[in-house]
Amino acid sequence: MGIPTLTQLQAIRDRIAPHIHRTPLLYSASLSRQLGVELHLKAELFQRTGSYKPRGIVNAVALDEGARRDGVITFSAGNAGQAVAYAARIFGLRCTVVMPAGASAVKAAAIRGYGGEVVMHGTAAEAFARCQAIARDQSLTYIPPTDHPDVIAGHASLALEILEDLPEVQTIFAPIGGGGLAAGIATGLIAADAKARLVGVEPVGAATLYRSLEAGKPITLDRVDTVADGLANPFAGQHTFPLIRDRAERIDLVEDRQIIEAMTLLMERCKLMAEPSGATALAGLIAAVSSLPKGAPVVAVISGGNIDLARLKALL
Amino acid sequence: MGIPTLTQLQAIRDRIAPHIHRTPLLYSASLSRQLGVELHLKAELFQRTGSYKPRGIVNAVALDEGARRDGVITFSAGNAGQAVAYAARIFGLRCTVVMPAGASAVKAAAIRGYGGEVVMHGTAAEAFARCQAIARDQSLTYIPPTDHPDVIAGHASLALEILEDLPEVQTIFAPIGGGGLAAGIATGLIAADAKARLVGVEPVGAATLYRSLEAGKPITLDRVDTVADGLANPFAGQHTFPLIRDRAERIDLVEDRQIIEAMTLLMERCKLMAEPSGATALAGLIAAVSSLPKGAPVVAVISGGNIDLARLKALL
Repeated sequence: MGIPTLTQLQAIRDRIAPHIHRTPLLYSASLSRQLGVELHLKAELFQRTGSYKPRGIVNAVALDEGARRDGVITFSAGNAGQAVAYAARIFGLRCTVVMPAGASAVKAAAIRGYGGEVVMHGTAAEAFARCQAIARDQSLTYIPPTDHPDVIAGHASLALEILEDLPEVQTIFAPIGGGGLAAGIATGLIAADAKARLVGVEPVGAATLYRSLEAGKPITLDRVDTVADGLANPFAGQHTFPLIRDRAERIDLVEDRQIIEAMTLLMERCKLMAEPSGATALAGLIAAVSSLPKGAPVVAVISGGNIDLARLKALL
Repeated sequence: MGIPTLTQLQAIRDRIAPHIHRTPLLYSASLSRQLGVELHLKAELFQRTGSYKPRGIVNAVALDEGARRDGVITFSAGNAGQAVAYAARIFGLRCTVVMPAGASAVKAAAIRGYGGEVVMHGTAAEAFARCQAIARDQSLTYIPPTDHPDVIAGHASLALEILEDLPEVQTIFAPIGGGGLAAGIATGLIAADAKARLVGVEPVGAATLYRSLEAGKPITLDRVDTVADGLANPFAGQHTFPLIRDRAERIDLVEDRQIIEAMTLLMERCKLMAEPSGATALAGLIAAVSSLPKGAPVVAVISGGNIDLARLKALL
């Protein structure tokens, strides 16, 4: 598989456009002043379902004939499950989302709100096995939440929007969980032949892509531990890894404390309620700010805002 | 004084434009689905200083020769003080903001951040008296936070932006404290000869304009008590009152409980961190939704987002 061309990415944008918000790129005067750069926030927490996920997942479901015929299933503790259920509603499909026991009740309720069936079961590994068993028994098509070319190509739309709104952007900071978003941005930057740098940001407790780059290949961590539940992904993808390796300038690691500080800044200064994963790119940008040219036009992708208020209250 | 013409309001927009964000009108798919209307949120919490206030206050300071010569002073427990300090910074003026003792330390810090001097003193009445004394002693020009034609005319810019972004808007819900914002929207709607209805929303514990309409004249309440500190204004204005009386369809009252529910919806569904005042228009819209035509394009003005996180935590 090669990198999609700009024409191909435009066709994907046309396909998903009826179902996706073109989210605003918000300029923060307050944080720009404090940080000494021209800071723009790609407000992807306003995306349908509360995260960037449907960009790629709607595209993948639209293109999958098996899914369109038989219905879909996925395994997700959170935002991808909502995006798959949302895509299933668009196309009128059966949908099952398998979550580990103890996954967020609010996210489960959101999935049910889109008409998806929720199965909660065991540990992550047990839930994944159950997901595969149900897919077989019920002839549902498994939609990979992250590591699929059509998912990644759909996420590339986010990069094209940034380039339209801020053509002079010098550096884009994006969070990395499984790497689907960063790989999508890399795809968009490559297809558009853009000069902008891409910096991935990972929690130090889930440094999956960082360690994979060190190892020279996608690896799986034994254990992840981070406040950013949306980034707590131990698997680096076969498709996401090479795109990030080839196009990202680097991956920066941030502590949970820095993520919560960035969340707090987003609330107090920008009036945005990001989830921890959604604040991670800003945390990385703040940590790296001394290396950015004074007044540089930069973007942090605020990738999602799905957090329940009880959890928020506990974090503040 | 007559109502400004559209040409005059355009000149005001040009004057304040370098200092004011043109805030987005955000469509909420989630709340639209729930409420059965096409709900748009005028995201004025993203305005410079975190509330709509600088629209009018920058205009008033720009036009006031005494202020531009001698510097400015105002009396405010909150958002207006920040806006006056911000306007003073723009024009390089001395600025003092007198606040009652016990006013928000975070808001005081923001005022100092714009270079304003903060005086905290006594009760609201004592602080107001101190404000007048300092203005005399130091030859500072008093900037009225709300009830001044130039303030109201600056706020009218918000209505013109809504009409540009959603020309078919049927009803605009706006919060009422002293009535400056609602009077500004009324001014904009009149000047643009727009058909849109205007509904003011007040907390039941600070029903200043509601009681004034009943009385047929601006009245002062003995006591106000509401979670929406930005609307806890006991004075109806001489300028704001007739504009609201003549152009608003009505004023609706909401309980504190409804305001906090609307805040929670804005956080969970829209990822927006509004202060209680900023959520009040949405609370009124939700309470009135059964009277709105199915699918009607409506706007709630989310007027501000200045709340400190300790207070937020206590409210959740």
